[in-house]
Amino acid sequence: MASSKLTKLLVDVHSHVYLPRYTALLRSRSNAPLIKTLTNPDGKPDDRLLILADEPSTGRPVGPQYWDRDEKLKFMDKHGIDVTVVSTANPWLDFLPPPEAHKLALELNEDLEQYCSTSPKVVDAQIPRLFGFGLLPLVPNVSVDALLQSIKQIAQLPHLRGLIMGTMGVGKGLDDEALDPVWAAIEEAGLVIFVHPHYGVDAKAWGERDNGHVLPLALGFPFETTTAITRLIISGVLDRFPNLKLLLAHSGGALPILSSRLSSCIVHDPVVASRLKHDARYYVGKLYLDAVSYGPEEMGYASESLARASRYQTGSQETASHSSLAVKRSLGSKRMMFGTDHPFFPPLSSTEKWKSVVENLQAIEDVQGWSEEDKDGVRGGNAVELFNLNIS
Amino acid sequence: MASSKLTKLLVDVHSHVYLPRYTALLRSRSNAPLIKTLTNPDGKPDDRLLILADEPSTGRPVGPQYWDRDEKLKFMDKHGIDVTVVSTANPWLDFLPPPEAHKLALELNEDLEQYCSTSPKVVDAQIPRLFGFGLLPLVPNVSVDALLQSIKQIAQLPHLRGLIMGTMGVGKGLDDEALDPVWAAIEEAGLVIFVHPHYGVDAKAWGERDNGHVLPLALGFPFETTTAITRLIISGVLDRFPNLKLLLAHSGGALPILSSRLSSCIVHDPVVASRLKHDARYYVGKLYLDAVSYGPEEMGYASESLARASRYQTGSQETASHSSLAVKRSLGSKRMMFGTDHPFFPPLSSTEKWKSVVENLQAIEDVQGWSEEDKDGVRGGNAVELFNLNIS
Repeated sequence: MASSKLTKLLVDVHSHVYLPRYTALLRSRSNAPLIKTLTNPDGKPDDRLLILADEPSTGRPVGPQYWDRDEKLKFMDKHGIDVTVVSTANPWLDFLPPPEAHKLALELNEDLEQYCSTSPKVVDAQIPRLFGFGLLPLVPNVSVDALLQSIKQIAQLPHLRGLIMGTMGVGKGLDDEALDPVWAAIEEAGLVIFVHPHYGVDAKAWGERDNGHVLPLALGFPFETTTAITRLIISGVLDRFPNLKLLLAHSGGALPILSSRLSSCIVHDPVVASRLKHDARYYVGKLYLDAVSYGPEEMGYASESLARASRYQTGSQETASHSSLAVKRSLGSKRMMFGTDHPFFPPLSSTEKWKSVVENLQAIEDVQGWSEEDKDGVRGGNAVELFNLNIS
Repeated sequence: MASSKLTKLLVDVHSHVYLPRYTALLRSRSNAPLIKTLTNPDGKPDDRLLILADEPSTGRPVGPQYWDRDEKLKFMDKHGIDVTVVSTANPWLDFLPPPEAHKLALELNEDLEQYCSTSPKVVDAQIPRLFGFGLLPLVPNVSVDALLQSIKQIAQLPHLRGLIMGTMGVGKGLDDEALDPVWAAIEEAGLVIFVHPHYGVDAKAWGERDNGHVLPLALGFPFETTTAITRLIISGVLDRFPNLKLLLAHSGGALPILSSRLSSCIVHDPVVASRLKHDARYYVGKLYLDAVSYGPEEMGYASESLARASRYQTGSQETASHSSLAVKRSLGSKRMMFGTDHPFFPPLSSTEKWKSVVENLQAIEDVQGWSEEDKDGVRGGNAVELFNLNIS
């Protein structure tokens, strides 16, 4: 295998799919999440996706880009993406009763394996163009056995290299001690956990004015991820399971920028302070972040926040000014990786490339302090390593 | 006046007080916000502050540092703070009916003027050590006249250089068009608006585990500020009132790090996109931020986000890589200023200096890319200029 080729691949770690089996389920439903078919003024059918119960009843347009693998490959070709690690889009199985969620998780994991294993290979590198994140039946009252069985299945399916999850756990969030056996099994299997938002925050925060989807998407999603991972950190999960590989959607939302404030609030609160082994910033530096933040300054900062783990490890003698900014940004960049959020954020008008994708690629290019090697890492090399994409 | 002295002052722009008249009101109340006196096991009285209705009924310790000016000056002396721009702590007048809020605003503004005008002077510089942010009776159903009268009063009181406000406006948030005459009058008067959180977000987000005050303080406060200013920006307030001087508490929370995502979400949403003159990042670059974020990387990033206004002005030809990182950070630093959040975040045990204050000063010192002159600006020079502290 041409390893020099592997360091130059463009790998998308944030790309969603509703597999045909899942799409069929959405079409069969009468309350959200669902897909319904309206009729356009010109008489043509118009598929609409309603993800949330309180969404406007027109929903959003949905089409083959959500379920047709050829559309995914076309999108990849258009943007020069060599490999994609595909995940089911929210809300996953959250709305199903345990037996149905369990059965569907097993089926969808097999479906996704099939989707990936029959994909074309990257020319020259001879690795598949599609890998996947599996699903767990994370719903209230599910048995631990069902969860462990799904983890075992994912670990055994060769093209699945991790799993995607929302922020609800089995109903009480990711700081629920009932999840400890789940963390233990995922850690043991070496699977990457892609944590992704769905619920946002209470819509009352957005006020009365019509701002379309701007506030829930721009703020609600990142707030949700920030809250979920903060709760996970301060409950001690990363002390108990230090080798968990958590990849956060949307560059971790606000967590990196609020991590020093979080640290200060913890130090002033003995309940939480006495519970943790390290400064909050240590744990933040142990995370992985997608590079889906749309600006070079944002990405530069994210890499700085990721480079701080060793400084904030208990007992560290390292000081803030130890290294140059470029050295710190370079170090942190190793934990960041390109993503597109496809098929969400489609262009308003049909253009050659998607604006959001072009922007994120340009942002990677423009980060000050990242070497060409660092940028290659963020574009693909880091994902090749984290997901072992060179091992089939 | 020794102007070289003025560039070396340490000025605290984020420091709170409950003036005696306000404290008396809190003591007279039977529901939150209130101050009540418990009895310690040793028989001594123990004053407790309950700010929120759903706070644990033990509240938090409260004492003379909240209302006694000598305590404020002692705190300033201990930390080498020359000048403080003092503001009433949350929840201000939010809980009062309009006539009471209006009357109390006028009285408290006079009280604060007195508090400042009778303060000692900074040795050598001969400027007062205390300035103030006034209060407006921002409550539902208040008359515009009452608001305008308070703005006029504040503008005429020589030691008041701005006003503090929460995020509720007159009940519907800061994107409420009913506030347009208020913004116009504040802009005309040249007063600085210090925007500060109080309500956080729906507590359901914090889950079932007891984490003390960590989540509402570390995340809820910044989320609230972020939401309020985002709503203000996307409603077009900064297009209609481009000379408003908005100073955001806690370095603007998550707004700077989410501003490129916000921009992307707006571009993909024609409702909001068509409403605004510029990219969202233009408006973020027009804000002022306190330097209360507890980390040098956070402060460095904040300064980068503030330096982007000209790049994101409609019609700009500037590109991301135009300037060196140090040049951008230096430019943005002009809009940042030191703060302590006194008397909140007191040390757990009695020590010489407050950890949170020491940390923020050290963070300013450690920001990479800031020159000594930039750091002097953040420590005091920028506040001297913004608040015209050299003009008495």
